[in-house]
Amino acid sequence: MTVLDQIADAIGADRILTGTDAAPYGKDWTGAYTSTPLAVLRPTTTAEVSAILKIANAIKTPVVPASGRTGLTGATLAQDALMLSVERLNDIYDINVDGRTATVGAGVILSTLHDAAEAHDLIFPLTLGARGSAMIGGLLSTNAGGSNVVRYGSTRGLCLGLEVVMADGRVMNLMSALHKDNSGLDLRNLVIGAEGTLGIITAAVLKLRPKPQAYATAMVAVASLSDALTLLYKLQDETGNGVEAFEYMPRSYIDKHRQLFPNVARPFEKDYDVNIMIEVAATQAKDAIPTPDGSLPVVSALEETLGAMLEEGTVLDAIIAQNEAQRREIWKRREDAGEVAFFGGVFVNTDVAVPLDKVADFEKMLTPGSRRLTQMQTK
Amino acid sequence: MTVLDQIADAIGADRILTGTDAAPYGKDWTGAYTSTPLAVLRPTTTAEVSAILKIANAIKTPVVPASGRTGLTGATLAQDALMLSVERLNDIYDINVDGRTATVGAGVILSTLHDAAEAHDLIFPLTLGARGSAMIGGLLSTNAGGSNVVRYGSTRGLCLGLEVVMADGRVMNLMSALHKDNSGLDLRNLVIGAEGTLGIITAAVLKLRPKPQAYATAMVAVASLSDALTLLYKLQDETGNGVEAFEYMPRSYIDKHRQLFPNVARPFEKDYDVNIMIEVAATQAKDAIPTPDGSLPVVSALEETLGAMLEEGTVLDAIIAQNEAQRREIWKRREDAGEVAFFGGVFVNTDVAVPLDKVADFEKMLTPGSRRLTQMQTK
Repeated sequence: MTVLDQIADAIGADRILTGTDAAPYGKDWTGAYTSTPLAVLRPTTTAEVSAILKIANAIKTPVVPASGRTGLTGATLAQDALMLSVERLNDIYDINVDGRTATVGAGVILSTLHDAAEAHDLIFPLTLGARGSAMIGGLLSTNAGGSNVVRYGSTRGLCLGLEVVMADGRVMNLMSALHKDNSGLDLRNLVIGAEGTLGIITAAVLKLRPKPQAYATAMVAVASLSDALTLLYKLQDETGNGVEAFEYMPRSYIDKHRQLFPNVARPFEKDYDVNIMIEVAATQAKDAIPTPDGSLPVVSALEETLGAMLEEGTVLDAIIAQNEAQRREIWKRREDAGEVAFFGGVFVNTDVAVPLDKVADFEKMLTPGSRRLTQMQTK
Repeated sequence: MTVLDQIADAIGADRILTGTDAAPYGKDWTGAYTSTPLAVLRPTTTAEVSAILKIANAIKTPVVPASGRTGLTGATLAQDALMLSVERLNDIYDINVDGRTATVGAGVILSTLHDAAEAHDLIFPLTLGARGSAMIGGLLSTNAGGSNVVRYGSTRGLCLGLEVVMADGRVMNLMSALHKDNSGLDLRNLVIGAEGTLGIITAAVLKLRPKPQAYATAMVAVASLSDALTLLYKLQDETGNGVEAFEYMPRSYIDKHRQLFPNVARPFEKDYDVNIMIEVAATQAKDAIPTPDGSLPVVSALEETLGAMLEEGTVLDAIIAQNEAQRREIWKRREDAGEVAFFGGVFVNTDVAVPLDKVADFEKMLTPGSRRLTQMQTK
């Protein structure tokens, strides 16, 4: 019996895609990487994942796990391998409002979880441009950062529990919902970020947070990265760590973005080298209730801070979104980072962070002629 | 050559204590556990730790790492084993104010690090009663929670990088200072909380945070644990997660504490079943600057919240510290938890947390006659 016959016997032929049905799985979002998987397997339960891995392991057939396939590094290439897609493990098992946790399958799409949490006035804080396709399994396996990482940390910090199927099919139940769990070795963090090399994540317990009640969103130009760091700390301290996003966009990023999306206005009339996208969230009601003149305290506070820094010369220019449409426009520039990276020219594809106080030095290392930095994690 | 001769040859005889010099290391803070180590080794560098483990491993002599020996579980018992004390690895190598990190040896005492950070208007947020003796190595190896865990997370969440010497003497350098580091498997979290079983932590990079500018500290009596949870979330939301401590003390804890420390006044005139110690910190200047009448906004806000809950009956009684002496008195009751646990009668010694919304159920499981719960982690 072939490996596919064995798998069909174990979990049903309808879980297996081959030929033209499997073809779309041969390329990822970038289109830069293509492969022809032996077949695409779409199990619907953890037990089915276990059955597949047991069979594949016994006859040494490689298995590549995949979820939303929105990555930029070709990590789901499955040439001469079985691709195991977790897309059907897409149940939201539980939203625990009191405990502020969500228990979900690995195939749940990020934006689906966003909606489920918001229905209870909570949020799952991780967000990124691909949120409409990216799935929890891949986000955990790559320890995705996303654009709120500065406030909420990367995916690792948002995960309380995991269910993992190991290569031999054994199921490892680490589905703790505890914020502190000192029982045994911390295997959960070992699997997070392991890119599927240690097992396939099938379910997770995730942290939810209260939904911010209002936002202040701005584009700011500063003279240097060192001034940007001053601005970040100042805002964090003044808002009680309310800074949700602080994203550095060098001039080259702004330029490439405008080449790809000519309809988008430039952020400022002048061009600046150091552009920062900022979002501050108000979790306290007092910062989110409009004053008699209709302004939001969280927005006024940001205006005041930026105004003072404009006067002293640390901030060169600043625009604060006055409505949701302007806010979305500012966010779009950030969320197009994938397009800018892939279609904006040569780039260095890494997922490496630089210590905050070393970002300026790091940029100096790149010679002006080959400045390849398109977008950089600020935390 | 004996193992001690080999070690003396490698790193010097003055690193080795035996006989009466070693005797104090035979018991820990509790006095409940005693052992007679073969010798106590006090290396001064990572290279010396490595040399010791290489020798001990070659001749299969067990080594038990120890640091401040303030634990409550006898984990540093070293019967028929070498005790390796990290106490001389006590250098603070660096306080990086811009990056908000501290690089320290495993033998640095917690309160020493507190002082070093505060000199730069920063804090290392982990704190507990034993802070004057407990050392960074042990705090990391046990993933200590401490009384600020509700705000800052346990030690795991405060550690960015580690240096670890493995059992065969190899040194594992994981001394990253990055908030996000997706290079390779997350071995750092595997070693944290492993109680020394995977290697000996010799140094760490730790996160520092801005120093709160003012505190509001209170003892509060509520009718039930469910009301306590309501209070916690309400305060977290109203203060923008400014709740630094939220510690549940059942009536039995208050009683035992008063038996051990008869000079301490009872928190309220009446006795209540559910007593909560609360501390809220103001990181924003506007909450910490006294108003014309001399009151602190952070204190007034807590008074207002508790006052409203008193009126509606969710809070039964509340006392807010009006000065530092009253604040210390409230904290002392919490920090005596070790004494209460060990000298207050029979108890169950665990370091297990319970999901917030299950604490009441957990307590119900304990029959009234054998209620052994003395103090419980609330996050």
